[in-house]
Parts: sequence; structure tokens; C-alpha cells
Amino acid sequence: MNKLFLSLLCMIPICALSQELVSPNSQLTMNFELENGVPTYQLSLEGKEIIKPSSLGFELKDIENLLDGFSVVDTESTTYDETWRPVWGEQSEIRNHYKELLVKLKQDATDRYMNIRFRLFDEGLGFRYEFPEQANLIYFVISEEKTEFALTGDHKAFWIPGDYDTQEYDYTTSKLSEISSLMNKAITPNASQTPFSKTGVQTALMLKTDDGIYINIHEAALVEYACMHLELDEDTFVFESHLTPDAVGNKGYMQAPRNTPWRTIMASKNAGDILLSTITLNLNEPLAYEDTSWIKPVKYIGVWWEMITGKSTWAYADVPSVKLEDTDFENLTPNGKHAANTGKVKRYIDFAAEHGFAQVLVEGWNVGWEDWIGKSKDYVFDFLTPYPDFDLEGLRDYAAQKGVRLMMHHETSGSIRNYERHMDAAYQFMVNHNYNAVKSGYVGNIIPRGEYHYGQWAVNHYLYAVKKAAEYKIMVNAHEAVRPTGLSRTYPNLVGNESARGTEFEAFGGNNPDHTTILPFTRLIGGPMDYTPGVFEQDMSVHNPTNNSWANTTIARQLALYVTMYSPLQMAADLPEVYEKHMDAFQFIKDVGLDWDKSIVLEAEPGDYITYARKEKGKNNWFVGRTNDEKPRTSNISFDFLDDGKEYLMTLYADAKDAHYRKNPKAYQIAKYKVNRKSKLNQFCAPGGGYAISIIEVDKDKLKGLKRL
Amino acid sequence: MNKLFLSLLCMIPICALSQELVSPNSQLTMNFELENGVPTYQLSLEGKEIIKPSSLGFELKDIENLLDGFSVVDTESTTYDETWRPVWGEQSEIRNHYKELLVKLKQDATDRYMNIRFRLFDEGLGFRYEFPEQANLIYFVISEEKTEFALTGDHKAFWIPGDYDTQEYDYTTSKLSEISSLMNKAITPNASQTPFSKTGVQTALMLKTDDGIYINIHEAALVEYACMHLELDEDTFVFESHLTPDAVGNKGYMQAPRNTPWRTIMASKNAGDILLSTITLNLNEPLAYEDTSWIKPVKYIGVWWEMITGKSTWAYADVPSVKLEDTDFENLTPNGKHAANTGKVKRYIDFAAEHGFAQVLVEGWNVGWEDWIGKSKDYVFDFLTPYPDFDLEGLRDYAAQKGVRLMMHHETSGSIRNYERHMDAAYQFMVNHNYNAVKSGYVGNIIPRGEYHYGQWAVNHYLYAVKKAAEYKIMVNAHEAVRPTGLSRTYPNLVGNESARGTEFEAFGGNNPDHTTILPFTRLIGGPMDYTPGVFEQDMSVHNPTNNSWANTTIARQLALYVTMYSPLQMAADLPEVYEKHMDAFQFIKDVGLDWDKSIVLEAEPGDYITYARKEKGKNNWFVGRTNDEKPRTSNISFDFLDDGKEYLMTLYADAKDAHYRKNPKAYQIAKYKVNRKSKLNQFCAPGGGYAISIIEVDKDKLKGLKRL
Repeated sequence: MNKLFLSLLCMIPICALSQELVSPNSQLTMNFELENGVPTYQLSLEGKEIIKPSSLGFELKDIENLLDGFSVVDTESTTYDETWRPVWGEQSEIRNHYKELLVKLKQDATDRYMNIRFRLFDEGLGFRYEFPEQANLIYFVISEEKTEFALTGDHKAFWIPGDYDTQEYDYTTSKLSEISSLMNKAITPNASQTPFSKTGVQTALMLKTDDGIYINIHEAALVEYACMHLELDEDTFVFESHLTPDAVGNKGYMQAPRNTPWRTIMASKNAGDILLSTITLNLNEPLAYEDTSWIKPVKYIGVWWEMITGKSTWAYADVPSVKLEDTDFENLTPNGKHAANTGKVKRYIDFAAEHGFAQVLVEGWNVGWEDWIGKSKDYVFDFLTPYPDFDLEGLRDYAAQKGVRLMMHHETSGSIRNYERHMDAAYQFMVNHNYNAVKSGYVGNIIPRGEYHYGQWAVNHYLYAVKKAAEYKIMVNAHEAVRPTGLSRTYPNLVGNESARGTEFEAFGGNNPDHTTILPFTRLIGGPMDYTPGVFEQDMSVHNPTNNSWANTTIARQLALYVTMYSPLQMAADLPEVYEKHMDAFQFIKDVGLDWDKSIVLEAEPGDYITYARKEKGKNNWFVGRTNDEKPRTSNISFDFLDDGKEYLMTLYADAKDAHYRKNPKAYQIAKYKVNRKSKLNQFCAPGGGYAISIIEVDKDKLKGLKRL
Repeated sequence: MNKLFLSLLCMIPICALSQELVSPNSQLTMNFELENGVPTYQLSLEGKEIIKPSSLGFELKDIENLLDGFSVVDTESTTYDETWRPVWGEQSEIRNHYKELLVKLKQDATDRYMNIRFRLFDEGLGFRYEFPEQANLIYFVISEEKTEFALTGDHKAFWIPGDYDTQEYDYTTSKLSEISSLMNKAITPNASQTPFSKTGVQTALMLKTDDGIYINIHEAALVEYACMHLELDEDTFVFESHLTPDAVGNKGYMQAPRNTPWRTIMASKNAGDILLSTITLNLNEPLAYEDTSWIKPVKYIGVWWEMITGKSTWAYADVPSVKLEDTDFENLTPNGKHAANTGKVKRYIDFAAEHGFAQVLVEGWNVGWEDWIGKSKDYVFDFLTPYPDFDLEGLRDYAAQKGVRLMMHHETSGSIRNYERHMDAAYQFMVNHNYNAVKSGYVGNIIPRGEYHYGQWAVNHYLYAVKKAAEYKIMVNAHEAVRPTGLSRTYPNLVGNESARGTEFEAFGGNNPDHTTILPFTRLIGGPMDYTPGVFEQDMSVHNPTNNSWANTTIARQLALYVTMYSPLQMAADLPEVYEKHMDAFQFIKDVGLDWDKSIVLEAEPGDYITYARKEKGKNNWFVGRTNDEKPRTSNISFDFLDDGKEYLMTLYADAKDAHYRKNPKAYQIAKYKVNRKSKLNQFCAPGGGYAISIIEVDKDKLKGLKRL
């Protein structure tokens, strides 16, 4: 039958024939089909099945499910090709190019309608459910979303335990079949955690088939909906969506007309395609703000690491409890270890000004830290009142004189209602005191009790905080919030999240040496992470004799992370006095860009290594970074991304030959070369190591005397 | 042993001897005793036991309970006698006179401290738990409060089902032993209800013993705590406190140092003593505001009853759903039944101005009513945007010209976070548009889902709304909120609550004819009720042919309610066109006072009849009201409350001889007399009837030609 006839046939509502969708470059094919009234989709890469026929639908509370009994009412096919410019990002231009298939379904027995919109990009598929305005389905409660991802085999997976409250786990690399046996070990302690299944994992989930196909499952545009996890059927290797419940076990409150978030499946033979995929951003709504001139990437330092290591405290006094409405903080006895004091902050401001850091984060500036964690305390912070030793006004002025801003900190302790009650006043307070960026935190269980960090209730809150911040021209970096899903396209003042195991865990027991070779394939798929690298001192007992933790990283790899862990916010996390011992290495942190015209992947294997090269926005500078796992390796890259006919000054910050993340982490070497697009590099990378490279276009005379690479 | 020796003995920590507390008039005696380390109290009236030894304490989550193992560390006895003036009330002066016993306990095994403070007034006992600042008990979670009220027999009780979400039940009058068998019938449908036990009831609970002793159990100063219900042990007639849980089943989140609310037990041979008791107010904290000049009682009418009867709608259009963020309300087709339109509101403003009503409540003025109820809709109202047919600015100005204000309406649909997000803007909007009073509502289940109307979470919210309103000089009348517990002493801008089955239920099936002979003994113990009386047309089908409901009340009794149902807010609920047919009766509503120098009870039997007399504040006018149950009765009162040597003009609005709440409710007679303190009245009261009297001091010449009563 010819295609026209097929098209005609497929306009008949009882048609159960496949609807095919092909990616622009023809490599990916998606097939939609109703199987016995159940909507299914299937995905192939170059003719080879990636996702077997997988069903779609919903279990609803108290009413008929939306699982079967469907017929196709109509389909619409379109092609879209547009280029847009993000406010900040890894690329200055992003092409949004896909083929779309909109399938309109009717559940005949109930006279209800559900559409599924598929968008097939060159590197992956996105699809979402849409509930059009209709008579018989308006308000409904989701008991569970039943989206399948039927994998073709026992793939290698890079996973963390499914959990309604935290992502702060080390990644486990294993076969899918091994997940359940490794789950207990994977669930390490956290201030707020709710694992739900020995076969449940979080997204973005990174996979690699035995054939070398890279697959990534995530979601985009998580708005007014619960965060999706994946529940594995160990017999069939089929994942099914598992949404985060609310306090009473419901998984979503919906009012039609509306859409769900997009579910995304990337597939490529090339790991770099996964890293560079713009699917997540492209599936989000365009920019919502008219004026974005106040949104700028920020390089910062902070009064923070000494508390993380335990050298100092967030708290001002050592009392077991305080009450913001009653306690006279002026009359408490200071514990002598309160880091956020005027003198210390001035020191940090001086350091920031001297070395070109725009902002200084100060945690522990505000009253309430004495009993901030683990008490389920409702009125825990007011976000307004400084401790007696923090001269707010004076520091604002001192910083301004030095051309530096302080960065605000709003720890909420998970007490969401309390934060919202204070939010306008807290944001206005920021404006009044020259702050334009806030790191927010949600450490501990969510209040209202029974809700989870990743449920619809909290997801709604996080976006509320971002949108309200925009009214005050404030940028938000939300820690412990739900992992991002590309919302920064729409709301680019959401400049960062943590929502994964970050550098602070180097002080809480250490991260796996391969952790940062996995994070860009998982956590970073949805948006940047405030990973806060730059830890030069690995031995935490140097700061706090009772802290035996070790940062499993060489210094060279720490520099690399400023390139491999894309973020418009970059912190130099360590203490100024530590940097002052390594100002040569620190130079890279000062030089590295924050915003990019172009990013490319030179080498990538999840769990082993990643090498990125990025061109600084508006300049002819490039930065290269390589992060390496626990094995010694050699990196082989070429510089053919450089402009033809140009010579550049390259500075290479690399592991010394005998460097090792545990045994010899501070051994690095710095060398300068002249390079051009013909240059190549073979570079040793230590276990837990890597390298960082800055490439600056300079006049030829500046290259005199330098060796060619 | 003499008292001194006893006192000395009782300072020994292992002392288990009784601690006695006697009321100022010596009639009530409370005995505190540790029985095997369990704290207990007992109450007697004139030597006769009212409350048998009843235990006190708490079950705590995850830690040792606070139930036993106590010893007395110390006791302190004080006497207190002070008079204070409320901003508004039934009396212009209130005497706070009690004997107090503070018992300080230590739980020896855990080294934790708990105090119990007893205050014994002439008409009853109040006690609360206090958790002092201490090392071993700071943050704790209450699983259940275990306060017993051990009654001495199978008393007659006037009760409604214990319920975490509503009080809108008819009262059942029965023996305690009959509660469980009558519970199912008592639980009539409601938009939000969570009954929890076939032997659970709410407070205030009114009781009468076979010996004719009146007993009342309630709580005072419910702040940052869950509302208390009572759970009956049918074998022993012991009630135990049953707190409202949160979404995860916990009953209280506490941080020492802090106190619980007061538990109150009133006891008297005289029913009027219960009605006039000021214990609840006296146990609350004194006035918290400096300036109260903006708080004034209000007599009002409203665009409301025609929606309650179903004649009109709150909604503007008949569409199944709207979205505040998307729907273009200007382009909806009006349903033609939207009551809150400019023309109708002007009519009400005219009527109010003509007849001396200060405010006009308008419900349904703001977008969102199309799908406001029963949808668990989060973003249900914005409290700011009027419907297209409500000329907000024009009506503000029109009302101002006429010397009238509009009264704001904030229906929240139970969506608490949404209300709080809009609250500042909504209150400022009120100020900008000349509103100074808001009726708020919480119809439907609370959002966040899992929380209840009477849990600690919502209780916190209601007070938050009141305190924030005070910042804007706004008075609050909160419907469907937790029943009041005297907080109006501290926050007198809380001018009303509903939190019981009000007049609207006359249109939803009818209230029991004796309903208002019980409410003052129960619902009104903690504070005024916005009962919204004044319904002159009993047959709801007159307004809405499909509404077969009947208001079980004569017109005369409706007038009486303005006296017997004390409230600083009084609504004339019916439609102007109904009143225009009975302007002679309506005159009483126009004349009746709102605020009182003195209130006395002339006759009272719960469930049968109540007769109040009240002297208008700052004037020599008295108002008398009698509400009668379903039996025909004769009221016998004397006017010896009038000043000696004065003559007054009395207008009596009474049931006609053949009046009956069902058969002949509109039959009333109005007569004028001259009266003085020697006058007496024997007055027939119809079933579901009553009478109302205004007594005005006038010049003697105005009394010429009037009969003496």
C-alpha cells in the first residue's frame, strides 16, 4: 500500500495501524500504535529497536482509568525548525528541530479524550500527554502514571535510588538486573530521604547497551506535577513511571485542559550526543520574561566551606534551641566559632575583589541556626534578622565599595509555608541590601508534614519562588529542590540547583572518584548544577581534626570541573588561605569562562571520563576540561575546534605523573604552549584526576619562546 | 495536722497528698493528687463530686510518654482579682477573679518537667499544661493528649459528632450512653467532614446531671495546637481528650518552653451561670493591640441569602470550569442569575443606607465561583479580580456617598496556601477600596490535602490571617474555621466565626426548632457566632421553586436571636423585598444594640428556652430576647434589672397566640407599653418561637396613652 492510502486509512478512528515518526536526520524512528485499545510507542535507532512497544496511560482515583479502550480520532504531523538564543548556556544559539506527531485519542466507553504529542529530534524523543477541554474529564486525580519504557535488554545503568526526598546518593553502576541486590547499599543516610522500592531509580537515568548505544531517560518541563521516578520490572527490563505521592498517597491533581511534563528518551551511538542534547531545553516553553538584563552568570566564593568541614558553625551560640519570637540573640553567649561574622566576611570580600569574584555567599548570617535541622520546626527562620556579629549594613557598603556583592542565603529547613510567608519581605530585604542572587535550601523533611521534596506541592512551591524572585530581579539557586527539567529556558533567573550529591559530600565521607564522570549524563541533563568545585585541600581533618573525610579528587580535576560541570554559577569553594598556597592553579579558576558561545564534547564515556571544550561567549577563548574516574588513563584530543589560521596561548593544568586522588592529590603541573587547530594532546590523567586548559587568542609576539604543543 | 504542716509536707518531692484549690466563693473545690505517680484532678461543687479523679498527661511519639512516674517538685498558690474592659462584648467590664494552683512535676526516670496550672473561678475550673525550658524535653511530638474528664454519671448531653472538619451538625440531646447508637443519624452530609468515632463529640460540650447540675467542657486560648474533641468511654462515662491529627497522624508539634491551651470545666446549679461565664475570655492573654479604634461592631445586610436559597448564583457563568490564569471572564456568557452585580448591590446599598445598616456583604463578586467547590482546586480564587458585572470602583464610591461600606468576602475553598499567597495583596486591596471587614470561608477539604480544618496547621493559619488583618486594620469573620476559644480578648479584630450550623441551614433542610436554645451553651461559649438571623420568609420555595426547605422558626423568634445570639456582627439575612413586607417587625432589627454594658440571663434551660436581657453600651436602653424550643411555653420574667425610678417605653414583638414555626410562622404581634423595674411579663412563646423586646428610656410625655405592662 502506498503512503497516501495508509494516511487515508489512518484517518479512520478504528484504525490501529502504526503511525510512524522519523527524526530530521532519519536515524530515529518512533512508531505509535494502539494495541487492543492501549496506546503504545516504540523507538528505533538506525533500524535497531531501542525501546520495545511500551504502553502509555494513567490510573485515576475513583474514576475509570485512562489505560485502554482507546481509538484514534485524528493525528496531525508537523515539522518544526527554529533557532533561539538562551540568556545563558552552553551554546549561544540552540536549534530546535523536530518532527512532531500529535495523536488524538478517544476512550470510547467513557467519551473522554487524551492526546499524546510526540516530538522526535535527531538525538531523541520527547512526548507528553495532553488533556483537552472536554465534558467528561475536567478535575481528576492521578493514582499513578503508567508510562512504560520497555528496554531491550539488561543494560548497564548509572543510577541512584528512587527517593521522594533526596538525590544526594553516590551513583551505582550496574546491570539493570543487579539494581535490587545493590539497593540497600546504595541508600546512604540523609537528612531527608524516602526510598520507595528496591527496584526504583531516579531520572535522568543513563544507560548503555551491550551494543554500545547510549540511552537516557528524563523529563522536561516539570510544572504543577509530581516528579517522575522509574520502577523496574526485573523480569522484562521494562521501566514504568512512578510519580511522587502527596501526603495522602495521591500523585497528581489535574484540571483539564492541561498537559503533563514531557518524557524524554535520548538515544545515540555517541555519548557526547547525550551530553550536548538540547532536547530538554527545546521542550520547555520559550522565555517568559521581557527584561533579562539583570540575569548574569556569577563566579563566587563563600563563607561556607569552613562550616561544611565542621571547622566553624552556622550557629552563633551553642544553645539547644531558640525561638525567633522570644530569644534575645544579643544576649546569647557567642560560641566563638560563628563563621558569618563581619571581620571574616570582609576578608572574603577583599579576596573576591582582588581575584575578580563577583559575589561572596554568606551562610549563617541570620538568626535561627542554633536548632535549624532535624526538629521539624515550623517558624525556623525569618530571613531578615542578622546575628549580632554580622553588620549587615556595613558589609553591604563595604562590598559595594569593593565592587563585590554578597550572595544571600535562604535556608528554609524544608518549612515551606514559613518561607512563603516571609518571601516578599525577604526578597525586598535583598533588594534593599544590594543582593541580587539567593542560594535557597530545603534541608530536612518538608513541612507540611507528609509532603515530599519531589511531590506536586513542593514542585509548585519551587517555581513560585523563582517567579516571585523575578519580580524583584533576583536570581535563584535552589538546593535540595527537585532536579531541574529545563525550566531555565522559560525562567532564566533559575540559575542553579543542587539536587544531587555535590562537592559538600567530599567533606561528608567523600564522593566516588568517578562521580563527576556520571553527573553530566544524569543530573545535568535537566539543567546546571551548583556543584561548587575548587576544593584544593582533600584532607578535611586539616580544617576540623574530627573530620576524617577525604575529597576523592586531584587538584587538576577540580579545575577541570569548571568546564565539565556546566553552570552559570561557579563557586570556588575552598578557603582563601588554601588558595593562597596554590595561586598558580587558582589562576585557572579566575580565568575560566562562565557563559559560552559553543560547547563540544571531545571524549566521553559515562563512568570513565568526560572531556569538554567550550568557547567563551563573545570572545575567542576556549576552555577544555577533562574529568577522570578511578583508573589512570590517557586523554587524546585534537584542537581542530580552533579557528583556522590563528595561534593561541594554551595553559595546561594537569596531574603530575604520580598524582593520585588519595595518595598524591596535590601533585599538579602547569605548562604553557602555543597551539593552533592542528595541535593534538596526549595527556596522562591520574585516578580521580583530570586536566584543565585555557586557550587564549593572543598576538603572535606573546607566543614567543613558548613550545608548540 | 494543721495547714502549715501540710504545706511543709507537700514540699517533699515524694508527697502524694492532695493539693486543694477552692474558688473565691468557696463553692467549687479542686483537688490535685498524684496517684501512683499519675497526676489527677477532681472537682466538686458545694461538696458534691462533679468530676471524679481524672488523669492528666500525654502520649508522645517515639519517646517516653508523660503519663506517669511523676513527683511533685513544688507548688505555688496565688489569688488574682482584676477587672478589665473588652473592646466589645456582652459586658463592658469583666472581672477576672480566681484562685490559682501551679503544680510543678518531675518525671523522675527521664528527668523531664511538666507543670500544670489550675485556675478556679466561681463558675468553673481552667487548667493547662506547661512545659518549662529544660534539658531533656525540647522538641516533641504529641501522639495524643490524655486529659480525662471523669463524669459522675450518665448525664444528659447536648452534643454534635466529633469531627476533624466541621461543626455544622444539628445538636443531639441524649444520655451519654446513647451517643454511640445515635451517632450515625447525627452525621448528616457536609462539604467537608471527618467524623472519627461513634463515641466522639466536640466541645463545647453541655451536660446536665440528674441532680440538675449544669456542666460545660471546652477549651480556651487554642493557639499553635490542635483542636480538642472528647472521646467517651461508655462504661465509665469518662471523657478523654482527642486531638485533631495532621496528615501523618501526629497531633502536635511542640517546642518547650510553651503551654497548651486551657481545658475548662464549668459547673453550676444555674444554667445562666454557664451562659454568662467569662472564664474562657479570662483565660486568654490580654489585648495585644495598642490601637483598637478601628474595631467596631457592625450591623449588615448582604447579597447572600438569594444564593443560599438557590434563587441566584455566586457564579457569573454556567461553565463547568475556569482557570484564573487563562479564562477571559469578559467573554463568558453570563448566566443571568449572578446576584453580585452592580445594580443589585446598589439596591442593597440603598436599603442599608435607608435603614441604618453599616455594611453590605457581597458574595460572588470575584472571579472563580464557577468551579469553587468540591474540586480540590489549588488556585481557586485570587481575591482581587471582580466579575465583569461588578463595578468595584463605582460601588465603592456609591457606598461611600451613602455612608455605607461594602463587606468583603474571601471564600478560600479550603485552599490555605493559595489564600496566604494572596493575603497581603487581598488585604491591601480591601484598604484601597474602603473595605474594613472580611467574611472569610473555608468550604471544602483543606489543601494541603491530608490536613484538617481543626488541626494545628489550620489553627495556625486562622490566627495568622487575623493578626495580618490587624496590620491593615481589618476585622475578620471566619466561617468554617475552628470554633473560637476566647482569642477575641487578645485579638479583638476577630469579630466572628461561624463554625457551627447557622441560619443558612434553614435553607439546606432546616435547623431543629430548639437549635438556638442549645447554641449559646455550646458554640457560643468560646466566642460570638455570625449566626446571620433575620429570616422572615420560612418557605424557601418562595425564592427557589426547587428548594423545599423550611426555616423552623417564627418571625418573632428571629428577632429574639439578635439578643440571644450575642455577636458584634449582626446580619439581617433575608432579602430587602421580604423585609419590606414586614417593616413593623423589621424595626426591632434596626433598633437592637450590638454592644453591651451588661448582659443577664432571665431564664435558661438548654434545649428548651433562653431569655437574655442586655443593656446597650453607653445608653439606657435594654433589649430582651427569648428563644423557644418546639414546645409551646410561657415565659415569666420580671424587669427588676431596670433602673429604679425610671419609666421606659417597651415594644414587644411576640408570637401570635396561634403562631407555630411550621404552621403559622409569620403570625406575630407588636405592642407598646410603659414599663419600670416593677413590671413583669408572662408571655406565650410558640413552638419554634419567642419574643423580642426593646426598652428605651424616654421622657415621660412620650409614654402618654400607653398601657402599663
